[in-house]
Amino acid sequence: MAYINENYFKLQAGYLFPEIGRRVREFQKEHPQADIIRMGIGDVTQPLAPSVIKAFHEGVADMAKAESFRGYGPEQGYDFLREAIAANDYHSRGTDIQADEIFISDGSKCDTGNILEIFGHNNIIAVQDPVYPVYVDTSVMAGRTGKFLGNGYYDGIIYLPCTAENGFMPALPERKPDIVFLCYPNNPTGTVATREELKKWVDYARKNKTIILYDAAYEAYISDPEIPHSIYEIEGAREVAIEFRSFSKTAGFTGTRCAFTVIPKDLKAAMPDGTETAVYPLWFRRHTTKFNGVSYPVQRAAAAIYTAEGRKEVKATIDYYMNNAAILRESLANLGFKVYGGINAPYVWVNSGRGIKSWDLFDKLLNKANVVGTPGSGFGPSGEGYFRFSSFASKESVIKAMERLGNLKF
Amino acid sequence: MAYINENYFKLQAGYLFPEIGRRVREFQKEHPQADIIRMGIGDVTQPLAPSVIKAFHEGVADMAKAESFRGYGPEQGYDFLREAIAANDYHSRGTDIQADEIFISDGSKCDTGNILEIFGHNNIIAVQDPVYPVYVDTSVMAGRTGKFLGNGYYDGIIYLPCTAENGFMPALPERKPDIVFLCYPNNPTGTVATREELKKWVDYARKNKTIILYDAAYEAYISDPEIPHSIYEIEGAREVAIEFRSFSKTAGFTGTRCAFTVIPKDLKAAMPDGTETAVYPLWFRRHTTKFNGVSYPVQRAAAAIYTAEGRKEVKATIDYYMNNAAILRESLANLGFKVYGGINAPYVWVNSGRGIKSWDLFDKLLNKANVVGTPGSGFGPSGEGYFRFSSFASKESVIKAMERLGNLKF
Repeated sequence: MAYINENYFKLQAGYLFPEIGRRVREFQKEHPQADIIRMGIGDVTQPLAPSVIKAFHEGVADMAKAESFRGYGPEQGYDFLREAIAANDYHSRGTDIQADEIFISDGSKCDTGNILEIFGHNNIIAVQDPVYPVYVDTSVMAGRTGKFLGNGYYDGIIYLPCTAENGFMPALPERKPDIVFLCYPNNPTGTVATREELKKWVDYARKNKTIILYDAAYEAYISDPEIPHSIYEIEGAREVAIEFRSFSKTAGFTGTRCAFTVIPKDLKAAMPDGTETAVYPLWFRRHTTKFNGVSYPVQRAAAAIYTAEGRKEVKATIDYYMNNAAILRESLANLGFKVYGGINAPYVWVNSGRGIKSWDLFDKLLNKANVVGTPGSGFGPSGEGYFRFSSFASKESVIKAMERLGNLKF
Repeated sequence: MAYINENYFKLQAGYLFPEIGRRVREFQKEHPQADIIRMGIGDVTQPLAPSVIKAFHEGVADMAKAESFRGYGPEQGYDFLREAIAANDYHSRGTDIQADEIFISDGSKCDTGNILEIFGHNNIIAVQDPVYPVYVDTSVMAGRTGKFLGNGYYDGIIYLPCTAENGFMPALPERKPDIVFLCYPNNPTGTVATREELKKWVDYARKNKTIILYDAAYEAYISDPEIPHSIYEIEGAREVAIEFRSFSKTAGFTGTRCAFTVIPKDLKAAMPDGTETAVYPLWFRRHTTKFNGVSYPVQRAAAAIYTAEGRKEVKATIDYYMNNAAILRESLANLGFKVYGGINAPYVWVNSGRGIKSWDLFDKLLNKANVVGTPGSGFGPSGEGYFRFSSFASKESVIKAMERLGNLKF
């Protein structure tokens, strides 16, 4: 008799974003005329850059002729893309990540969920709170946690509260985790980590043999030249950190699907007997056995981001979104919200300052202003009372949304 | 201290196909002039069909304009593709699979590897022997097996030998598995299952509450009208079977990446206390939490396979490959090989009949004829002495390869 993985039944309600989708669909059904402005799911709205489109078409055209047709590619990705990433994202910033340490994938959501497969079940995991729900939910599904507790936490996970009081920068944990997820620029708080902050974590990880799973999906939104874009800008990080990057937000690839994960060859973890072994061969085996590479035309499209023209175009789109973020920051501050993030990140994280709970604010904004945001409590208990606005929208709709909020009473 | 998943160290040597790649590269390095004919990895060689290319370009063009741009799509795939599949692959054959029971993914390799996540660790898994290595290797990596034994098997897995003696059709297992992988048309043996044969398995599964993981990646190669294309053509299969399909071999998508998995809503498995629960919601949760959908232009390209023009074009390519299979069958029989498969499947499975071991034949063919095939023993102990030839090649190279084999002494 086949048995189910019962850990799935520990999961609380729906995954945040489908739940938002459900409530929006329900509202829309009842109010088919409503002009809903969506700033909830954090999905990009601007088209792919012209250089990207051109390369994408070229990739498709290659598939039309036997001479240039591509069948199975290397599971880890084509060298043309891995080399462009190594040169432009890493060597240009003085970090020594090599092309063969880069694994191209179809998304960071997949990678951050799948990465735990290569680590033992006994590892204690730490996450920031609030947190991108995928890290926690995939840990629950894999049986790496205990039950859901009354306080909104899962037993067995170490939560690192990030609140206005600590500037959304968690203190080093008292109880030692084996693996820690860090996300900078942070989703959902929009906070960035300074070099000193990251050094603190890398030093801690080296001392305690902790592995840092560093999600840098939003690095392209960093405007402050002092802020590191990669954890490998910190000395010693190659020994302790895995980095996740995505083209989803960098270049509007949410519907096109391309991302990558960096596993430095220096990274080590322990065998059951305590001896150390390299992590790289395990991910290599996992990636080549359970994945078959990203669509060739998509990889061609992604590589175009690194051309001179592509960089300029992608930068212009990021500037467009960051201008939205500035509008959001200013408007929401004027409405009396406490406003965080939105300077080096596309997310503006606000607190109503009036004690309104996150989902109540969500429902109020949806019902009264037809504006969709993301309730902070959906990211974890420390997000309660907070709300995330995404700058991924047209400028016109951001202005309109803020006008509508201006007409509400809070 | 972070610990590794030590199950990875149970894995034997390299995954079969990378190992073939390694030996070929090494040979090529020593013999840069050699004109190597590759029929090893089972990768398609013919370009994408014109209708597919047209739709692919249209999908890319949609991404260039804000009005038609697509960001995150439904993780399960767009309705236009799911509905085309339900109508053309299922309703047309009298099976009642609905569009929302179909989950679009980037590959069957991923899906057959990931599916076990939703089942408990205590399930006993059965596989055919020889077998597509991914089913076994992913089970090993997830700690669902014991050690690798001297006989070429992993402890804890039930192997179902498929040999010439039983017509490559395994007997029902004596020890009861909870989950059984079946692959028809079979990779590597090229065998197909009749309606009676499948009914035997479905009845067995219903009686014993076994789940059948049915890999039908090669169904498009079935030429015999009596052979079922889907396990759902058998009564009661909706209660016990998950089906995997892929566009890789159907329409040359090995480098384009699109596949799908069917989870009927009637499918049930047991909770730890023995009560039954639906499997569908678990895969739905897994798919929406750990995956972000297939690239939109790729889904557009896949949907074109179901247009009148697309079907005709795809059929022509399949006929082309099956003509190669006929050439392989005839030539290899003339060379004194015992020949199986290649009639309803793109693979021709041969036995030298001279007691030559599979890897020895691989090395001999590579070194003496510069022809790459797949050693049968790489698929499992019962494949020893066998060899797989793939019809995925140009007709010219198939003829040339057979001529070269004709000049060899066996």
